[in-house]
Amino acid sequence: MSKYVFGVDLGGTSVKMGLFDQEGNLLDKWEIPTVTENEGQHILPDIAASLQNKIEERDIALADVIGAGIGVPGPVDEEGRINQAANLNWHTCFSIPEGIQQHLNIPVVAGNDANVAALGEMWQGGGKGYSNLFMVTLGTGVGGGIIVGGRIITGATGAAGEIGHICVEDRETKQCGCRNVGCLEQYASATGIVSLARKRLDQDQTASVLRQGELSAKSVFDAVKAGDPVAEEIAQEFGRYLGKGLAAISCVVNPQAFVIGGGVSKAGEILFRYIKPNYEKHVFHACRDVVFALATLGNDAGIYGAAKMVLDKVK
Amino acid sequence: MSKYVFGVDLGGTSVKMGLFDQEGNLLDKWEIPTVTENEGQHILPDIAASLQNKIEERDIALADVIGAGIGVPGPVDEEGRINQAANLNWHTCFSIPEGIQQHLNIPVVAGNDANVAALGEMWQGGGKGYSNLFMVTLGTGVGGGIIVGGRIITGATGAAGEIGHICVEDRETKQCGCRNVGCLEQYASATGIVSLARKRLDQDQTASVLRQGELSAKSVFDAVKAGDPVAEEIAQEFGRYLGKGLAAISCVVNPQAFVIGGGVSKAGEILFRYIKPNYEKHVFHACRDVVFALATLGNDAGIYGAAKMVLDKVK
Repeated sequence: MSKYVFGVDLGGTSVKMGLFDQEGNLLDKWEIPTVTENEGQHILPDIAASLQNKIEERDIALADVIGAGIGVPGPVDEEGRINQAANLNWHTCFSIPEGIQQHLNIPVVAGNDANVAALGEMWQGGGKGYSNLFMVTLGTGVGGGIIVGGRIITGATGAAGEIGHICVEDRETKQCGCRNVGCLEQYASATGIVSLARKRLDQDQTASVLRQGELSAKSVFDAVKAGDPVAEEIAQEFGRYLGKGLAAISCVVNPQAFVIGGGVSKAGEILFRYIKPNYEKHVFHACRDVVFALATLGNDAGIYGAAKMVLDKVK
Repeated sequence: MSKYVFGVDLGGTSVKMGLFDQEGNLLDKWEIPTVTENEGQHILPDIAASLQNKIEERDIALADVIGAGIGVPGPVDEEGRINQAANLNWHTCFSIPEGIQQHLNIPVVAGNDANVAALGEMWQGGGKGYSNLFMVTLGTGVGGGIIVGGRIITGATGAAGEIGHICVEDRETKQCGCRNVGCLEQYASATGIVSLARKRLDQDQTASVLRQGELSAKSVFDAVKAGDPVAEEIAQEFGRYLGKGLAAISCVVNPQAFVIGGGVSKAGEILFRYIKPNYEKHVFHACRDVVFALATLGNDAGIYGAAKMVLDKVK
């Protein structure tokens, strides 16, 4: 008889959930809103109740539930303790598994959302076939997740893979959200690309389609594809910073593959045209032959990775 | 009855060897020269013969030898294959365990020397008590080794921890040995410190004890301790680059501790006065509370780590 596992991706506005069989087939997928009011104290009870509903709806025996994995937007340690998550309005340190288990008695494993998404892409996505990979998430910010020997590297305080805050520009004067200056996130995130674009457009009056309509990472790469020379320069800048950042990562963990995900990655393979030459310029020779791949699971990477985390940890 | 394990640290001029009991007590220690002539083809047979001699000399039954670990100056993959080691005059790709076992039939495990030294420091040295640490070796070059959950992270091509080649200076014009520019090694190695010192001394005629005698990393830090203001500036520069590099490493693997070894580390705790403020300036807040420790095993880190590698891998 088949057993079941839940994958939960907890975000600032909604919680994505998936029901999987133990072979990794996604059987069902649904969402609930994230209620961040009152210090986010409803979030974990809401998740537990939604899982409970699904168990009843599908008439699943509790003994057939291997467990639930949860990806959370903040640093989570090996035991599943989180120390603050601003997007969830959580400002204390507590155990996520315990928070769920007070309401639903199943094994629970928690991890940082970027790390969990990396595991998902390794298992069923763009990183399939690579057990040592680094997933780079280019979204509102820049995050990352490291997989070594098929397992997530968490780090001492759950901050492994927080590559958005590697300093890649000494000459920056604007502060990053983390209060440092020159962070990779300031140039390679969706927001960072818009900043680079604004700065370039303000420099002179060269004609560009980017001068009409709203600026976004998408509009920049659409303009690149249409042959806009100003957009081309912006993409070069983006690639210069990201390529250099990925080269630094390779000197540290030397992955087989980089899997690029997040909203910016929707631009597609064209990103590699800007990343690769800069990566090759800066990287140590022994790390040159890395594979660059696009993430393929999109918004589902988190639920896949969360489910895989349970299958790996709960025996 | 006690069992035995050998730790071998293969360097460009000599091979250090140690005999340990399985509790990690060093029972005997000796060296042989590294014969790099004829494409270094004598190196592994020489090691096997020396181990064989020790086994006979001490009247050890072969069945009581758990195995031998070897740290090698080059990238070594998970299976112990090396792909070139310039210092040993090795220019092909081959298996180190097989190279030993042709002459002596015991289990053999090989790893990169910097990684192996990191494991040694974790086991019996400055990193004791930390299972997630990063060892930084500041010698002629800058190397490193990552331990996560008590195990070495090797990387896809054995190049994990090669942090000497993280780019920390965009404005550099001189090439590093790796042919890139602005590598951490150009500023934080013994050679790099001498370059920084030369550059500073050439800038103007400010009096400094460094204008007499031979320049070295030691003379620079001796002058710092004696209150020399020019040496102080040089140490600040060194700290600026190294602190920034270590901050980047923390964003990737988020270690509990940095253990600083290699010749430059003989300067002692004073190094931290220059590294820490720069680390704190650049690091992501969740990684701020890292421990800085000095390596304590000196030249023996390699043989300790090599022995530990065998104890971990051979059951």
